[in-house]
Amino acid sequence: QWMMLDWKPRRPDMLIDPFGIGRIVQDGLVFRENFSIRSYEIGADRTASIETVMNHLQETALNHVKSAGLLGDGFGSTPEMCKKNLIWVVTRMQVVVDRYPTWGDIVQVDTWVSGSGKNGMRRDWVLRDCKTGEILTRASSVWVMMNKLTRRLSKIPEEVREEIGSYFVDSDPILEEDSRKLTKLDDNTADYIRTGLSPRWSDLDVNQHVNNVKYIGWILESAPQPILESHELSSMTLEYRRECGRDSVLDSLTAVSGANIGNLADSGHVECKHLLRLENGAEIVRGRTEWRPKPVNNFGFMNEVPAEST
Amino acid sequence: QWMMLDWKPRRPDMLIDPFGIGRIVQDGLVFRENFSIRSYEIGADRTASIETVMNHLQETALNHVKSAGLLGDGFGSTPEMCKKNLIWVVTRMQVVVDRYPTWGDIVQVDTWVSGSGKNGMRRDWVLRDCKTGEILTRASSVWVMMNKLTRRLSKIPEEVREEIGSYFVDSDPILEEDSRKLTKLDDNTADYIRTGLSPRWSDLDVNQHVNNVKYIGWILESAPQPILESHELSSMTLEYRRECGRDSVLDSLTAVSGANIGNLADSGHVECKHLLRLENGAEIVRGRTEWRPKPVNNFGFMNEVPAEST
Repeated sequence: QWMMLDWKPRRPDMLIDPFGIGRIVQDGLVFRENFSIRSYEIGADRTASIETVMNHLQETALNHVKSAGLLGDGFGSTPEMCKKNLIWVVTRMQVVVDRYPTWGDIVQVDTWVSGSGKNGMRRDWVLRDCKTGEILTRASSVWVMMNKLTRRLSKIPEEVREEIGSYFVDSDPILEEDSRKLTKLDDNTADYIRTGLSPRWSDLDVNQHVNNVKYIGWILESAPQPILESHELSSMTLEYRRECGRDSVLDSLTAVSGANIGNLADSGHVECKHLLRLENGAEIVRGRTEWRPKPVNNFGFMNEVPAEST
Repeated sequence: QWMMLDWKPRRPDMLIDPFGIGRIVQDGLVFRENFSIRSYEIGADRTASIETVMNHLQETALNHVKSAGLLGDGFGSTPEMCKKNLIWVVTRMQVVVDRYPTWGDIVQVDTWVSGSGKNGMRRDWVLRDCKTGEILTRASSVWVMMNKLTRRLSKIPEEVREEIGSYFVDSDPILEEDSRKLTKLDDNTADYIRTGLSPRWSDLDVNQHVNNVKYIGWILESAPQPILESHELSSMTLEYRRECGRDSVLDSLTAVSGANIGNLADSGHVECKHLLRLENGAEIVRGRTEWRPKPVNNFGFMNEVPAEST
């Protein structure tokens, strides 16, 4: 195990990433890893899904911590955090997708961390097409610490700040914060409600909790099918408000604005508001998604959608 | 694009697989690709899921065809198959898992094809721990051709046999065929039934069909949670009988034999029978799964399962 700041790649421009561990660039503060998009990571449009993109964000964040020699428990906590039973929890995630990659594309992911307020950490990502350098996706997230026994939020203890503080980059977020308030949806304001969602055993992560990425799948469960078929997600803002446990049963609510669902072919930009809530009404995630018409280069695919389902 | 038989790796023992394309070994008849197991491919036990294993089988099969220069339409059909509107459909899949890999492990997948009867193709796989050479998984499958317009099975046309015949290996299957008859389950013989399963938009592949791997997730939806928690899948035999469309609604049925579900802690080997069927009763997949108690090295995880759920 090497310390991030000690490790210098012999060929700083090398693209080879044989075992998916990635490497450190830019004075040891940015972690870079390449992903080859697999056939099972693409959908009917032949492009990677938003879940695939989010998975790559998660993997690079963990490998960043690992390559810095700071992986205590195997899932993102540092050794000092482990001693104090602290884990990271995400409170906010903002993603802008300019273009989705396809099978065989190599995506280069850069990630780094910064301070956020007094007791938070911001983690940013830039995803590029490895061949052309074109930016595909930018993402920014805010994390705080939680005591995994009491489930209460915690300040960053001095010992933890000493472990991670030297890795903080002093930079603006890669995405300007979307400061529009996310309003709370309810049965009256939602256009679509999907009830009875619950984690499968395979949705649980090593902490026996539902993985953050899974929430996105649930949010999209209530997005109307015609939007998924004719549009692609261009940006997303999520506020994580409460944990979902392994026995939780959730409702997914979506409200659509700026479009006539019955006539999406004529719609340009579509915006949705979302809520994941427990059956008792407690909020899990509030979200906003924005959608643009799909590019029409997909191998004639748009013509194959049966008329009755659009 | 190179022809498989012309391509000779310069360093036949090299392990580097920078862009996930893999390479040809053993006189051009075996395709090899390495996969690094990602954090999002493991579950609560810290091991890869059976779906992850199946995804890697799919990816290597497609990359094998691609590296042979025979990928016509982007999803497994050769140029001559495309001309004749033929696609491959899987009729049988048999998998034996000796050990599941964990995050950071490198899995080396070897795959090759053989003839199967007059009009079928067999595809086998061996998955090894790249570091130790230990065999992790063996799998064998049978494929036939279907006309994608009429949805009827087809003989292998002479032109297609000329394309692919020289790649057929003359060898026994990597797994002896499990010749025990798979009986049909119904409402009376099943112990667990999960109804109302339907594809999400993101479950569709580029042919607008439900991916084979998705069926496994649905089969496990009716496997009782206590088995998923205390046991791991050690082998699986699936018979694919009919296609599932994008608008299908399915039932998943499971019957358990050889175990007392209320007292799994004392159970060793458990066997299940499965059926996926349409609401009208038409059979999609029949299956058999075998389960063994989980290894107890999982970071104390077994102690964390709440008593009320086991």
